[in-house]
Amino acid sequence: MSESARPDIGSGGPGRGGGRRRFIGVGVGPGDPELVTFKAARVLRTAGVILVPATEASADGPGRAERIIADVVPDGAARIRRIPFSMAQRRGVGARRADSWRASADAAVEAFGSGCRTVAFATVGDPAVFSTFSYLRATLARRMPDVDYELVPGITAMQALAAASTTPLAEGREILALVPATVGPDRLGRLLDVADSAAIYKGGRTLPEVLRALRERGRRAVIGTDVSLPDQRLVDLDEIDADETLPYFSAVLTTPERTITGGRI
Amino acid sequence: MSESARPDIGSGGPGRGGGRRRFIGVGVGPGDPELVTFKAARVLRTAGVILVPATEASADGPGRAERIIADVVPDGAARIRRIPFSMAQRRGVGARRADSWRASADAAVEAFGSGCRTVAFATVGDPAVFSTFSYLRATLARRMPDVDYELVPGITAMQALAAASTTPLAEGREILALVPATVGPDRLGRLLDVADSAAIYKGGRTLPEVLRALRERGRRAVIGTDVSLPDQRLVDLDEIDADETLPYFSAVLTTPERTITGGRI
Repeated sequence: MSESARPDIGSGGPGRGGGRRRFIGVGVGPGDPELVTFKAARVLRTAGVILVPATEASADGPGRAERIIADVVPDGAARIRRIPFSMAQRRGVGARRADSWRASADAAVEAFGSGCRTVAFATVGDPAVFSTFSYLRATLARRMPDVDYELVPGITAMQALAAASTTPLAEGREILALVPATVGPDRLGRLLDVADSAAIYKGGRTLPEVLRALRERGRRAVIGTDVSLPDQRLVDLDEIDADETLPYFSAVLTTPERTITGGRI
Repeated sequence: MSESARPDIGSGGPGRGGGRRRFIGVGVGPGDPELVTFKAARVLRTAGVILVPATEASADGPGRAERIIADVVPDGAARIRRIPFSMAQRRGVGARRADSWRASADAAVEAFGSGCRTVAFATVGDPAVFSTFSYLRATLARRMPDVDYELVPGITAMQALAAASTTPLAEGREILALVPATVGPDRLGRLLDVADSAAIYKGGRTLPEVLRALRERGRRAVIGTDVSLPDQRLVDLDEIDADETLPYFSAVLTTPERTITGGRI
């Protein structure tokens, strides 16, 4: 955990790692900069270029990943490249999403071309969990087949929500599932019939049908928005209206009623 | 992320947090000390006492959580208390498990009694994911009803395995499940019929039936042991014998075959 490593600012010469070019998906956690790992911080501090998603909602200001990085890598601003990801793209408009991957790949190609050996792509949460990293990787791999890919895990919204509500996600012989609300009510229902706990992502506009599925099964749940940040909101399923929708950075967590050795958890 | 905070070494007087006593489950990640978060490190550096599980396998030496802490909190040794957790207890011998919780609760009661305001319980992975923290909490709550409970999330073995094998856990409309092998083959099979990806924990001695369930469904999978540590082993499902068993710190990850915009991920 040395803090002495210096950024790989492009000089054209081969950098660390025997000259191999590395594209690293870095999970920066749910929002609180303290929930970044030492490894993520080291990679961000040493990468030649850091790509960050910039959404329409953030207009010209920094998005969530960039705000986290500003805290962890205070001198990193000059190495950050904002990639436009509109909220519409996140909702699955295929052609526009491909545009975003292409813009990210363009930025990576440019960074490698200018001599960087290491390019980081910062992602909220974990780069292996509902992240755009793997799409971007596929896009870049077709243009630069000789790049190595790495992942640095990060704390997910689900884990932050469990911590904030002091709710165990899974214990003993329980099954925990992560499911995007976009699977639709039928698959969600089938899943809830076999999983004890579930973290439901991307609830946003489909929240009413998610809540209906939970209520039909007599499930208890907590809904978290901007969890781990100062404006965090935690709401119980009982307190939420049937037709409410949620901001993008929200998650729903349902867990079983537990009575362990006499104490409700 | 101030590094200046000092340990809350018991003096009998009220400490930070207005004198409330805090019992904090701290996730220290899968094994690599770099996969600890800044928050976990801060809590461990400032807690008056740090409880760590000590298994039979580690005999009188440090267990995995303690080895991680030794790296992150080099001057913390005097504040560490080893709690005996035998492997047999982990496998579910009820009375013995209750003994472990009681020993942990005893150590916490003693620490609070000697004036500590903050006691940490370090857990490999995340304290909300198949951790003993919630059992311990229930045991302690009956003895000291006025203690506050907090969780600090940590990187799970599943996330480390995904990173080590550069395998996305879930993307798009996929469902990811975490399941202990101890649910048995029937429930595991039902789950694999609805979940796209699954991380199977506690495979150990039941690995043969887990592998059978995966092979019956034509699933691909990677098996990781001691992931993120120098002696990490990653083995493909194809390369493993049908009757093999696994050490305790192993996980099985099955993901769908993916072909995104032309590239296999």
